[in-house]
Amino acid sequence: MTVLVVGSIALDSVETPHARAERVLGGSAVFFSGAATLLSNVQVVGVVGQDYPMAELDFLRERGADLSGVEQADGSSFFWAGRYGDDFNTRETLDTRLGVFADFKPRIPEQFRDAKFVFLGNIAPELQSDVLQQVRAPSVVVCDTMNYWIEGSGEALLHLLERVDILMVNDSEAKLLAGDPNLVRASRWIREQGPSIVVIKKGEHGAALFAEDWSFFAPGYPLDAIVDPTGAGDAFAGGFLGYLAETINPTRADYRRAMIYGSVTGSFAVESFSIDRFKEITTDDVLERVAEFKEMTAFEHEFDTVGSTND
Amino acid sequence: MTVLVVGSIALDSVETPHARAERVLGGSAVFFSGAATLLSNVQVVGVVGQDYPMAELDFLRERGADLSGVEQADGSSFFWAGRYGDDFNTRETLDTRLGVFADFKPRIPEQFRDAKFVFLGNIAPELQSDVLQQVRAPSVVVCDTMNYWIEGSGEALLHLLERVDILMVNDSEAKLLAGDPNLVRASRWIREQGPSIVVIKKGEHGAALFAEDWSFFAPGYPLDAIVDPTGAGDAFAGGFLGYLAETINPTRADYRRAMIYGSVTGSFAVESFSIDRFKEITTDDVLERVAEFKEMTAFEHEFDTVGSTND
Repeated sequence: MTVLVVGSIALDSVETPHARAERVLGGSAVFFSGAATLLSNVQVVGVVGQDYPMAELDFLRERGADLSGVEQADGSSFFWAGRYGDDFNTRETLDTRLGVFADFKPRIPEQFRDAKFVFLGNIAPELQSDVLQQVRAPSVVVCDTMNYWIEGSGEALLHLLERVDILMVNDSEAKLLAGDPNLVRASRWIREQGPSIVVIKKGEHGAALFAEDWSFFAPGYPLDAIVDPTGAGDAFAGGFLGYLAETINPTRADYRRAMIYGSVTGSFAVESFSIDRFKEITTDDVLERVAEFKEMTAFEHEFDTVGSTND
Repeated sequence: MTVLVVGSIALDSVETPHARAERVLGGSAVFFSGAATLLSNVQVVGVVGQDYPMAELDFLRERGADLSGVEQADGSSFFWAGRYGDDFNTRETLDTRLGVFADFKPRIPEQFRDAKFVFLGNIAPELQSDVLQQVRAPSVVVCDTMNYWIEGSGEALLHLLERVDILMVNDSEAKLLAGDPNLVRASRWIREQGPSIVVIKKGEHGAALFAEDWSFFAPGYPLDAIVDPTGAGDAFAGGFLGYLAETINPTRADYRRAMIYGSVTGSFAVESFSIDRFKEITTDDVLERVAEFKEMTAFEHEFDTVGSTND
């Protein structure tokens, strides 16, 4: 199957304690596609300026991404510059220039409108709703958002959530949205607004899925060196939805596996600047790391023979 | 089998955003025993003052704890008072009175000296070493410590670590000890000092085990209400070692299960003040939650049939 992604296509300048990268490919739609194309076909909708190095996107095209929804407009591409602190747990934005992204009105090409699996990258909730108007009968809609929209466009976001299947956000964003510091209660509140599933990304601490009567937890993949955390969340979404799109009608077991695929692609994303790591790896590398996750989390137990020396 | 624990036996006064408890049972040996007695027999070594409500420890005795190593000395019991912030992620110490604990010199009773499974609760590393001198041939020694000793008794701690099998600490403590903000590298450094296994407790984010050529991750149990996080780490250790003690010669599979048992008993600890929750539950409740952990983390995967639409 195919996944439709709508999001930013940016140029990023990133400083870490160890290295820096200047004007490299970034943006939610790019990180999502770098991961998702390892698992599924991807349709991309976004906007870039005249300065965008379009040839660098050929890599995604070769991997099966359909970029016919990427518009090249007059003006500059969305540019973001940031710097990470010593332990990669703090991030400072040094510069944000919206450029052509300021006037972005996502137009879904006719050939994308039958998409069943949709990722609404982190853009204004009003625009995310516009996208959903244009898609005929999506079966799984996954939506990201951020503090800026939660605080500034809360009403539009709540309206959008009524039509979203899975909200996928950071722990701090979930807590802010629900106004509750407890993640279990916050996720329950969010599900009451519409999504049947909430996926919480916790960076190095892994990811959690909360549904009505079940939950699932994936650890963070243990890396002894992080190059650049930028885009890890979108790469998680790409692995998650790229895997789901191959299942047609996802079951609970599929969602569990999707959490692991997301964790795997998220972990690859931080091993390089930009989407460079995805240029090096294949689906086999993803599968190998999925197997490692199983090793790191599986345990056997005979539930009728253990314990009970005292009771 | 039996577990030997040496640690504090205290009175705690705890304030949370929702409630408070005055002079209730606390201390590492008490939380450890509350958890471990659900799974194994426990031998306790510690000191209390004349003011200690000894009758309240009867609960542990009835559960199979041997308290003949608990000395009642002249003076006051170790007292700690603290207050938790809104999200339970910050803790302020309001008062610490060492009392008889200031002169604590652990004396291991003759009948405890053949212990095979030993938990060295968070006390001065010199005292932890003294304990090991008195135990004849332990097979698994688990050791806890804290920032205070890492910063003030670093040399004694490193000396101790040469004889410890498992260091069990918080993530911040591991990073401080190794002088490295990356947990994978920090754990490797610690293992180079002696312990073959490092267990990192991460509170709501779960726990990680790092060994030479494998690792294991347990999520935090999702609770929609926390009553009091005090003692969760020691209760984790109690479940971990209480389970291991029943295995005689623990295998890798046993260590994986021990991580889950620790996570389970740690999660029960925070559901009440003091060790009150352990008075209510039985081994069956522990097993039930172990099964829930399996539900929350297990996934099936056919490693030869999935993915690869593009490669």
